[in-house]
Amino acid sequence: MLKIHGVPISVHTRKVIVAALAKGIAHEVVPVVPVIPDNPPPNWRELSPTGKIPAITDGDFTLADSSAICAYFERTHPAPPLYPTGARDYAEALAIEQYAGEGVFRGVVHPLFHEVFVHPKVQGIPTDPARIAAVLSKEVPEVFGYLDRLAARGYLAGDAPSIADIAVASNLVTFQYIGFALDRARYPRLAAHFDRIVALPAFAAALDRERGVVESMKLERGFLEAKAA
Amino acid sequence: MLKIHGVPISVHTRKVIVAALAKGIAHEVVPVVPVIPDNPPPNWRELSPTGKIPAITDGDFTLADSSAICAYFERTHPAPPLYPTGARDYAEALAIEQYAGEGVFRGVVHPLFHEVFVHPKVQGIPTDPARIAAVLSKEVPEVFGYLDRLAARGYLAGDAPSIADIAVASNLVTFQYIGFALDRARYPRLAAHFDRIVALPAFAAALDRERGVVESMKLERGFLEAKAA
Repeated sequence: MLKIHGVPISVHTRKVIVAALAKGIAHEVVPVVPVIPDNPPPNWRELSPTGKIPAITDGDFTLADSSAICAYFERTHPAPPLYPTGARDYAEALAIEQYAGEGVFRGVVHPLFHEVFVHPKVQGIPTDPARIAAVLSKEVPEVFGYLDRLAARGYLAGDAPSIADIAVASNLVTFQYIGFALDRARYPRLAAHFDRIVALPAFAAALDRERGVVESMKLERGFLEAKAA
Repeated sequence: MLKIHGVPISVHTRKVIVAALAKGIAHEVVPVVPVIPDNPPPNWRELSPTGKIPAITDGDFTLADSSAICAYFERTHPAPPLYPTGARDYAEALAIEQYAGEGVFRGVVHPLFHEVFVHPKVQGIPTDPARIAAVLSKEVPEVFGYLDRLAARGYLAGDAPSIADIAVASNLVTFQYIGFALDRARYPRLAAHFDRIVALPAFAAALDRERGVVESMKLERGFLEAKAA
């Protein structure tokens, strides 16, 4: 069976899991947590040349990088499509997927996750409130403002849910898990988009699977419960 | 005419220019140099949400991110293909393209370019020899060693030149422009791969176009001249 190596609460692993669920690809998740020293298996760099999660193994085939993995799924399991058909919509979906990794994850979620979780709870480094404040005052308005404008279209690229929507919403899940609120008054179109995407059956199923880990890590989950009520 | 906004000596802009040349896509390069303060045009963030180069405009369509742009070209101009056909080769090409951005550029070329060029010549910050030494002693062996193993295949993904080969070779051009040698004894398969890829007509044409800028910036170019001789 296809194996997804990573952790379900990671932004990029979640994207791959949602894509697999959406396409009905049978899979098993093999936990790998690179932020915990010595956690990854000895052959990890053979699976993931950068050392990052996720990677997959599909029989004797190994592949790292979440965008390459989702594109692979699209080739092996074309239905339902997770990429728009038209050249421009398709390219925009890819660009937004990249932006989710570059702008949203690297600019916002990654530094916040490190300050709130990895530094104090794994590495014994005190949280730096100034770093958090800088991300919230500078990166968040820029990134969320851009996404809010994009979300006015309904879906971020094309006229159906795509990898772009999954990639962005996956970031916003982790952003909220670690205790930051999505400002619904300031970014109403992004908030409505988020609600719509996490309610998709594949996304909701992925989040259900994360519940145990999220509760054991004492992460925030109220933003999902409130909507389910 | 399609416009490519960026600088030809940038790793990611070069990838897009080589792809356009390979596919015979008529284009114009509009210089944008984000590392020079106030160089980008006022509407730059509308063209490139992250502020990075390259971005393209194709009529009223705007697209940022080099991987999305090359995928767009593949849709609008399928021949000659720059992506392998089979699902596994295709996915590997994408993964290596991402690795070229993440491992090779971010891990090696970007820090070296900043130490050698941007810091001393643009920002007035002294070069940090320890940072250069760390990249050369740690990242380079890891990254180039991985690429050297991949290069044993001939092409990096599939059995023809692809976006993976262009992305990696583009990094190695800039690495050498700024004065670092590709260790041909230590990485013989990577060196042979590099020679083969930069000799492809589209790549050679892109490098010819860069000659004037490279000479005016007093960058190293002997590694290309030697082969041409």
